[in-house]
Amino acid sequence: MNETTITAPPGTPFIDIVREFDASPARVFRAWTDPEIVPDWLGPAGMTMDLVEYNATPGGRYRYFHRDGSGEHGFRGVFHAVVANERIVQTFQYDGWPTEVSLETVTFEDLGGRTRVHTHAVYPSVESRDAMIASGMERGVLDSMSRLDGVLTR
Amino acid sequence: MNETTITAPPGTPFIDIVREFDASPARVFRAWTDPEIVPDWLGPAGMTMDLVEYNATPGGRYRYFHRDGSGEHGFRGVFHAVVANERIVQTFQYDGWPTEVSLETVTFEDLGGRTRVHTHAVYPSVESRDAMIASGMERGVLDSMSRLDGVLTR
Repeated sequence: MNETTITAPPGTPFIDIVREFDASPARVFRAWTDPEIVPDWLGPAGMTMDLVEYNATPGGRYRYFHRDGSGEHGFRGVFHAVVANERIVQTFQYDGWPTEVSLETVTFEDLGGRTRVHTHAVYPSVESRDAMIASGMERGVLDSMSRLDGVLTR
Repeated sequence: MNETTITAPPGTPFIDIVREFDASPARVFRAWTDPEIVPDWLGPAGMTMDLVEYNATPGGRYRYFHRDGSGEHGFRGVFHAVVANERIVQTFQYDGWPTEVSLETVTFEDLGGRTRVHTHAVYPSVESRDAMIASGMERGVLDSMSRLDGVLTR
């Protein structure tokens, strides 16, 4: 089984998430950006995703909600750069923390039929990065990567 | 005369720009966000600004060009959070470097009739921050702050 690595070096504003998938960059990129597929894997297990908008083109926006019995969480962002099968630069905002924004660069590296996806997130400060880590984002990331693995092998 | 301080600590992805103005936060914020005023101060001296769009509301976009006899430079971004007279979070992209994006947080601190404006920019990496410094952004920043000073005292 492929492992997800989450790295957040102390004193930096970065979070790096690396995961390999047994599928080509084209297939992984499509699952990552197609609004018909994204709700099947993005977010913590046990929550449903209501995807309002997901326009993965330069300047396009996304907007979605994760819901379970205890409530809903809204997220939004903008795709600033999109290079098919290679790279996405997007912002990330959580409704519960509306003036905090992070910037994510996602790269899809071709390993010859397999793909290494590297998400590099930067926060406005070390403190806001630390707060994101403390919020328990790790579970959502691990669940998402595991669910995406399932989508790609079905 | 008020001085502009530009700080870029080695090994970090940050650039911090601090400048005080002899005007209230409301006046400085208006000059910072009103598309009728922005072309009067934003950018290096000696260049004209063609402001295509400048919608400083949450989710709004901006798009402008700086031109002189040697050519034109296009810029774009999105306002992700806007709190009147207090805070702006926006992205920044240069057409010449389309897959690089930086994230800027601008705060307007009330000093009692005067205002301290602090622009805190974060880049995806230390290397891209260093490249921005090496590009000569300092001149544009110093000129902009000096020109804004002039706008506020006219």
